[in-house]
Amino acid sequence: MPPPSRMTSTSLPSVLLFTNDIKLKGVPEFLTEKFGEELKQNFPSVSVKLVDSDTDPSERKKHLEEAEILVAKPVHFADIVDNVPNLKWVHFTFAGYEPYTDLIKKTGKVPPYKVTRQGGTFGVAMAEYVLAHIIARERKFEEMREDEKVRDWRDNYFSQFRVLSQLTIGIAGAGDIGCDVARLCKAFGMRTIGLVRTPRSQETRSEYIDEYRLTSDLPYMLAESDVICNILPSLPETNNFFNEDAFQHCTKKPLFINIGRGDCVKESTIIKALENGWLSNVILDTTDPEPLPKDSQLWSIPEVTITPHISGYVPQRMMGELFARNYQRFIKGESLEYEVDVTKLS
Amino acid sequence: MPPPSRMTSTSLPSVLLFTNDIKLKGVPEFLTEKFGEELKQNFPSVSVKLVDSDTDPSERKKHLEEAEILVAKPVHFADIVDNVPNLKWVHFTFAGYEPYTDLIKKTGKVPPYKVTRQGGTFGVAMAEYVLAHIIARERKFEEMREDEKVRDWRDNYFSQFRVLSQLTIGIAGAGDIGCDVARLCKAFGMRTIGLVRTPRSQETRSEYIDEYRLTSDLPYMLAESDVICNILPSLPETNNFFNEDAFQHCTKKPLFINIGRGDCVKESTIIKALENGWLSNVILDTTDPEPLPKDSQLWSIPEVTITPHISGYVPQRMMGELFARNYQRFIKGESLEYEVDVTKLS
Repeated sequence: MPPPSRMTSTSLPSVLLFTNDIKLKGVPEFLTEKFGEELKQNFPSVSVKLVDSDTDPSERKKHLEEAEILVAKPVHFADIVDNVPNLKWVHFTFAGYEPYTDLIKKTGKVPPYKVTRQGGTFGVAMAEYVLAHIIARERKFEEMREDEKVRDWRDNYFSQFRVLSQLTIGIAGAGDIGCDVARLCKAFGMRTIGLVRTPRSQETRSEYIDEYRLTSDLPYMLAESDVICNILPSLPETNNFFNEDAFQHCTKKPLFINIGRGDCVKESTIIKALENGWLSNVILDTTDPEPLPKDSQLWSIPEVTITPHISGYVPQRMMGELFARNYQRFIKGESLEYEVDVTKLS
Repeated sequence: MPPPSRMTSTSLPSVLLFTNDIKLKGVPEFLTEKFGEELKQNFPSVSVKLVDSDTDPSERKKHLEEAEILVAKPVHFADIVDNVPNLKWVHFTFAGYEPYTDLIKKTGKVPPYKVTRQGGTFGVAMAEYVLAHIIARERKFEEMREDEKVRDWRDNYFSQFRVLSQLTIGIAGAGDIGCDVARLCKAFGMRTIGLVRTPRSQETRSEYIDEYRLTSDLPYMLAESDVICNILPSLPETNNFFNEDAFQHCTKKPLFINIGRGDCVKESTIIKALENGWLSNVILDTTDPEPLPKDSQLWSIPEVTITPHISGYVPQRMMGELFARNYQRFIKGESLEYEVDVTKLS
């Protein structure tokens, strides 16, 4: 993808990067000076300011009052929603923006500014995470590594596996991240079933989803799948979505991967599903709450793999690319990529 | 892919499955009755016989003398090459067939029968192996699993990784397996450099190899690559191909994956390359000799992962599909898939 053309006009609208994250030495965060540096590579004269947890409160208030373009995490927006009178556009650095939706619902007013979300970015990293976990499990990577410690060479044992083209994956939440996952699953020849909350018209369907089903067809998807991948967001209707009754429909002892939200499935349900053989293995990149408490039973179950909500992290460069493209569209008065329909929020 | 149409003629040529492998209880081998069963699903009336290490010698000789169609491992052909007077077609269950080439070279005669090899089958399994190892390493799967044991949640640490579209892979041996690997690498957005032993004309180039280079350009490929994947066969000219001098050209501390043949790189070279930081990690699915001797130093180096030559194993069904397709072509007198040009062997 070519970078936006360089602009040198001094009338470029300034950008405020806002974060309440506590700075961690040596760890580049999404919303640091580096994000601004990326934007400045395309727009050298643009003014980029950073307001973070270190910023003096009066300084902070002044910057927010003046801000026309803001980059922030949805979860931080509650702290600033009443202090941005001049806001024309906010870009959220997450694909989902539930905390913001909750906020706007409470006000009951349509926001007078544009809202964009970090779409099309996380899917690639998440898809890599999902595919590698599927293969690593089919090929028994961990067991092979254990054999290595005892200098064992069990070729006959490890040559018994399934290639991905023999497997069906059920993707709960076939939005843009789900379709990124599906695209790579199809590259490996997998059969893909995509669960969606509302019916999809023919033209909005992805070529990488072999079969679209409504969430009410969860039992069907579970019965058909060798791998289940949850990408559903946290919503009232997705809370406890994968309950005990649901998992009883599994027929293939599937692998369950949760890269959506932790509250879509209860800890007790996961444990019971493994105990009853409804599931064979579980990969959790998200838990409820996060971080997973030290005393959670999940940590000690060998069939459960826990990763600290990192499946969708992406290099800052990729984050910045979308924002820089949208910045150019914004100053030209064009529609923005991954723009949220604010009229539907309240 | 649709199965070949069913044929019921009783005049179907019979097939002899030959193996010298010692039977292992409960372990399905490529060349067992199951391979024949797969063929019979498409051709119910075909006669399939199995000759194995248990077969009585006189029985064995008789079957071989009568055999018109034979399925065998190249490495076993030495035992039977002088006893197949009626042979019209031999299918090798490996993608490479060096032992057979050596055999034919010695005789100096062009074989009077057709030869096919198990092409287009192993690449998929090998590509899955390669991609999963690349991702598992970039994402630190093993380290995350260690963190899990101590109930640690280091999201800031594990969120620092490269997605595959940031990486270049150098594939030594860009034949059909190499191109299967390259196809999936391209699906992940990687840059691919393919090393070949002879120049490729435009029409024989794969769309998945961004840059073809001759083996003499090995230093260039090593300097450019974040991942090096060896798929070269065992030949006089590939022996010790990756020597110490070569690895010194690496600039990106690449991951080295060997799914070709073990003798392409010496054990001492691997150890030196890791010690000097020319390589960061090494994944060996093939060693010299195999199995890797218990006292090899490689077993104990954390940066070396050893797997027992299983990257290219595939389900029998997939093996059988190619043979069944070719069987149909054979009885129709058509050209065969993955046919070896026997005139170029001797």
